Amino acid sequence: MINVGIDLGGTTIKAGIVKDGVIIRKKVIPTGAERPHREVVLDMADLVLDVVKEEGLTMEDINSVGIGSPGAVNPETGMIVFSANFADFRNIHLVDIMKEKISCPVYLENDANVAGLGEAAIGAGKGSKNCIVITLGTGLGGGIIIDGKIFSGAFYGGGEMGHQVIVADGLPCNCGRKGCWECYSSATGLIRMGKKHAAEDPASLMNKAHDGDLSLLNAKDVFDALAEGDTAATETIDEYAHYLAIGLANTINVFQPEYLIIGGGPSAQGEKLLGPVRAKMGEEIYGGETATKLVTAELGNDAGIIGAAMLYTIH
Amino acid sequence: MINVGIDLGGTTIKAGIVKDGVIIRKKVIPTGAERPHREVVLDMADLVLDVVKEEGLTMEDINSVGIGSPGAVNPETGMIVFSANFADFRNIHLVDIMKEKISCPVYLENDANVAGLGEAAIGAGKGSKNCIVITLGTGLGGGIIIDGKIFSGAFYGGGEMGHQVIVADGLPCNCGRKGCWECYSSATGLIRMGKKHAAEDPASLMNKAHDGDLSLLNAKDVFDALAEGDTAATETIDEYAHYLAIGLANTINVFQPEYLIIGGGPSAQGEKLLGPVRAKMGEEIYGGETATKLVTAELGNDAGIIGAAMLYTIH
Repeated sequence: MINVGIDLGGTTIKAGIVKDGVIIRKKVIPTGAERPHREVVLDMADLVLDVVKEEGLTMEDINSVGIGSPGAVNPETGMIVFSANFADFRNIHLVDIMKEKISCPVYLENDANVAGLGEAAIGAGKGSKNCIVITLGTGLGGGIIIDGKIFSGAFYGGGEMGHQVIVADGLPCNCGRKGCWECYSSATGLIRMGKKHAAEDPASLMNKAHDGDLSLLNAKDVFDALAEGDTAATETIDEYAHYLAIGLANTINVFQPEYLIIGGGPSAQGEKLLGPVRAKMGEEIYGGETATKLVTAELGNDAGIIGAAMLYTIH
Repeated sequence: MINVGIDLGGTTIKAGIVKDGVIIRKKVIPTGAERPHREVVLDMADLVLDVVKEEGLTMEDINSVGIGSPGAVNPETGMIVFSANFADFRNIHLVDIMKEKISCPVYLENDANVAGLGEAAIGAGKGSKNCIVITLGTGLGGGIIIDGKIFSGAFYGGGEMGHQVIVADGLPCNCGRKGCWECYSSATGLIRMGKKHAAEDPASLMNKAHDGDLSLLNAKDVFDALAEGDTAATETIDEYAHYLAIGLANTINVFQPEYLIIGGGPSAQGEKLLGPVRAKMGEEIYGGETATKLVTAELGNDAGIIGAAMLYTIH
């Protein structure tokens, strides 16, 4: 059975054709999140048609299209209630607009829930009925699986792990609050910290990446400099791990899942990221220890696509 | 059917005989939480025997004894894994010690879960299958009911809502972390804020309570002064509501329960507490609005006893 999964992000839209849990073709376009929602959604529909055609298939071959989107999503109505990462994503009928161009069933879920579904079913939490996936991307999303089901609150608007304040009166967040976990522990937060420490230390290797254009710094650049023993990069990861450990310890104290799975760009670093986080978390867990296993995602950046393509299994 | 419910707190131990959801007799003793755990638990067993005798009953009349305790509790083994409010409550066999003196079944649960059970079944969340009770006491506890069941994580150590950091690197908490929600929004936190504002303002009415002994200030004193328009009390509640709103908004963003129920001492103030909190929460909710109903507990300070006496219903 062939399904299309879409990972709708604030920066890019990724669509993949998924067969037996594997992506056989993928296509990526820029989101243009500053545009009216209708333009973004119709581009997404065209992306599906394009990737199917490029694989030599027709839409008759496609069982379903699943979409993971950041924000508060209602899977029953196919609407995005609110998403801070786009210009006007408030009460938009995303599935209805997709259906103007797509004839097969279209399913919508929160992107982090989708990643949670994928990781719990065939990824790092395989076989677990209680796991949480924290995805570190443009924002910070949480996919919560309790008793084998996606948990998103009584009215589908819950599960917004990134929009918990961990620094009262802290940095302003896209959502309107101050000091959200997302501000500190998203990949965006890591890059901001890296730029700050690099600017304070002209000798830092981080200033040498991208022909010296610090505005292009990415998460991997920070870890590359860290591997060279760069002081500013070490300070960056120390600061980043501090806030990430705080939020992860909060999550364990409340949910104590079997698996706490870290996904998104920075998670590709594996123990280079988790090592410093584990060291700091020991001081943070209620009672000093936990049975929760902290691991990185196995589906990598494809979790969003694969999980979205699996949405038909819970509908 | 007659059951005994016990509300084990850091300050007092309250035992009540509960019949048809109503407490027919209650007895309270100081906890002496600084003592070895065995002394505390045997006192608790004697308290049960005393209150039953005082009501003119014998232990043969008692169906079960239920205990709600703060901290990480394992209801299956009857052990308290860890509780920050006592001197040596770490991996203690609480139920086994109780059974040295009590012959009927003895059940143990986290105190906030117990309050959640009571409020969801017969209190403010009556009829709801998704509700959270936040209890503002010596500490801050959370009782989480999902799909009609107590949720406490995969290994019973979750649900520690109070031990989520909301002020990174903030005030030291009993649990070892810095800046836990409990430090700011427990009744203890309110009293600390009241004392600070009163000390800064010698004219404050809060300084006149208890014959001018500020060390005896309690939550009600702060609200009494607020009702008189006292400036320092107004500043106290403003500060308290700020942090309480942050934690409650975090809770809604993650769980979005049908009911978010506020219990514990300060909740007796009803809208005098919730009014300022609601005003601040409007700015804090993801997407700006929520379907979650914010209400005060209906079982009042008795929720712990009544909920504990109901533990037999889920065993």
